[in-house]
Amino acid sequence: MARRCFVGIDLGGTNIKGGVVDEDRKVLSRVSIPTEASKGPDHVIKLMADLVGRAIKEAGLSPKGIDAVGIGSPGSMSHTQGIIIKPPNLPGWKNVPLRDRIKELTGLPTTLENDANAAAWGEYWAGAGRGTRHMVMFTLGTGVGGGIITDGRLLRGHFDNGAELGHMIVQPGGRLCGCGQKGCLEAYASASYTGRRAQEAVEAGEPSVLRETFERTGQITSEDVVKAANNGDTLAGRVWDETCFYLAVACVNMQHATNPERILLAGGMTGACNALLDPIRRHAAEMTWKAADDLPEIIFATLGNDAGFIGAAGAAWLARQEGEI
Amino acid sequence: MARRCFVGIDLGGTNIKGGVVDEDRKVLSRVSIPTEASKGPDHVIKLMADLVGRAIKEAGLSPKGIDAVGIGSPGSMSHTQGIIIKPPNLPGWKNVPLRDRIKELTGLPTTLENDANAAAWGEYWAGAGRGTRHMVMFTLGTGVGGGIITDGRLLRGHFDNGAELGHMIVQPGGRLCGCGQKGCLEAYASASYTGRRAQEAVEAGEPSVLRETFERTGQITSEDVVKAANNGDTLAGRVWDETCFYLAVACVNMQHATNPERILLAGGMTGACNALLDPIRRHAAEMTWKAADDLPEIIFATLGNDAGFIGAAGAAWLARQEGEI
Repeated sequence: MARRCFVGIDLGGTNIKGGVVDEDRKVLSRVSIPTEASKGPDHVIKLMADLVGRAIKEAGLSPKGIDAVGIGSPGSMSHTQGIIIKPPNLPGWKNVPLRDRIKELTGLPTTLENDANAAAWGEYWAGAGRGTRHMVMFTLGTGVGGGIITDGRLLRGHFDNGAELGHMIVQPGGRLCGCGQKGCLEAYASASYTGRRAQEAVEAGEPSVLRETFERTGQITSEDVVKAANNGDTLAGRVWDETCFYLAVACVNMQHATNPERILLAGGMTGACNALLDPIRRHAAEMTWKAADDLPEIIFATLGNDAGFIGAAGAAWLARQEGEI
Repeated sequence: MARRCFVGIDLGGTNIKGGVVDEDRKVLSRVSIPTEASKGPDHVIKLMADLVGRAIKEAGLSPKGIDAVGIGSPGSMSHTQGIIIKPPNLPGWKNVPLRDRIKELTGLPTTLENDANAAAWGEYWAGAGRGTRHMVMFTLGTGVGGGIITDGRLLRGHFDNGAELGHMIVQPGGRLCGCGQKGCLEAYASASYTGRRAQEAVEAGEPSVLRETFERTGQITSEDVVKAANNGDTLAGRVWDETCFYLAVACVNMQHATNPERILLAGGMTGACNALLDPIRRHAAEMTWKAADDLPEIIFATLGNDAGFIGAAGAAWLARQEGEI
């Protein structure tokens, strides 16, 4: 019997990525196109359906060879209803029944998953999470996303808002986050807030090599911070260490909440390599309790930008496995 | 066919409680004896086996009428191995294979569960958690315990240490907790630490009606704090509000982590009634994000001191349901 194959689609505000993945978790094709989000939902949905077709063709298959389609979508959404509620980076989308639209256009069973959950499921299914049944993933980019696998199952929660780990409060009464809360992990440890914290310190007059960067480019990025920190800049070192410290707090808190074997770090900030991993591990080891020896292993995810579409394909595999579609 | 019946045993440092519960979640008997913990594990295990027999007899049944036994046990333990590792309040216990010992002595299939998880499962199975599939419980007593149900399943985690919610860090670098961490929820919001925070403020010279309590009894309890707060004492009001504030932080953090429909509060501190519930709800509502309307309902648990043994019986039901025993 032929191996079952799944199409995964990762819908982003800038690009739509997709591909075919088989049940052995092997990627058979990989395609990417601009989202053209400004042209509105109908246009984007048409592009997505076309992409499904292209991905199938490039894998050397026909639609008959595909078991199901999985979509990872940003913003608030409902897995149960298959609806995108109101994604901040897709203008004009409101309560769009994306799952059923793609199902109609492709004629294939389709499932819809939150993009951060899909990426975490991708790593669990085909990446750095393989071999464990209990995993947490932090995606460190412009924002901080999360995903939780517990006992081999994707944790979605009652409101389909599970694992919004960037909005766990790590500093009560702390920095205002874009979500309206104060002291969120994201408001300290995301790439954008890391840059912003450095910028605020420079603007407040603290000496740093980052002043020149700020004057030249009008902003300070987290890459600027990590580079300056690696070169011994005091301010940058402090800001970066604070980022790592709050990520360690979040790791310890997830240790005590869902008690995973492994915590994965993904997203653009992992480009900092050991400058990110080492201090997080050190802070977490210093900070955690001594009552039990259950601090999870903290490692990098391995699928990179493919995690989204591979995870979406994996979500389709899962939905079929559980008889959901 | 007769309804299947389960014996639940709640092993505490002071008392052992037990009873028979049927599959319709009806309590058929209820017994309690002193633990006599100072006499060591063999003695206590014998008492537990005797208690199983008494509970069966008082339910008007014979051992043949019992499907399985569940034990809720304190301290670090392994559900998978059925072993109590090293409970702080049971002297002389170390790596005791409690599950198999009780199984041998009673001749009944037996399962072992962490006591906080058992209590949460009890509320889910037979109490305030009925009707939802996603629930979190905080048990507020001398310490702060936790339990998580996600998608109808008890979350145990990889190391069997899931839902140690009292040790989530709510104030990085904050008060030293008994577990060795700084800034744990428990170090602010447990009954003992609530009393201790008030005591420290009194000892530091702050005016309060609690000074007289402290001088008379040598300590300040959380009941003293809540009573004084209810009577308008400024210091007590501030300390109590801080307790409620940190509990609200923990509620919001679990909203974003496992995204439950309902958060239950259990344990001795719930005796404070609305003086506890109202400020937690108010703080959580003020503090939570506006990005989605997913703040869980925060309510009291309903099984009281019976949650432990009912949950242990429910754990036996669950273990049979899942073919584990």
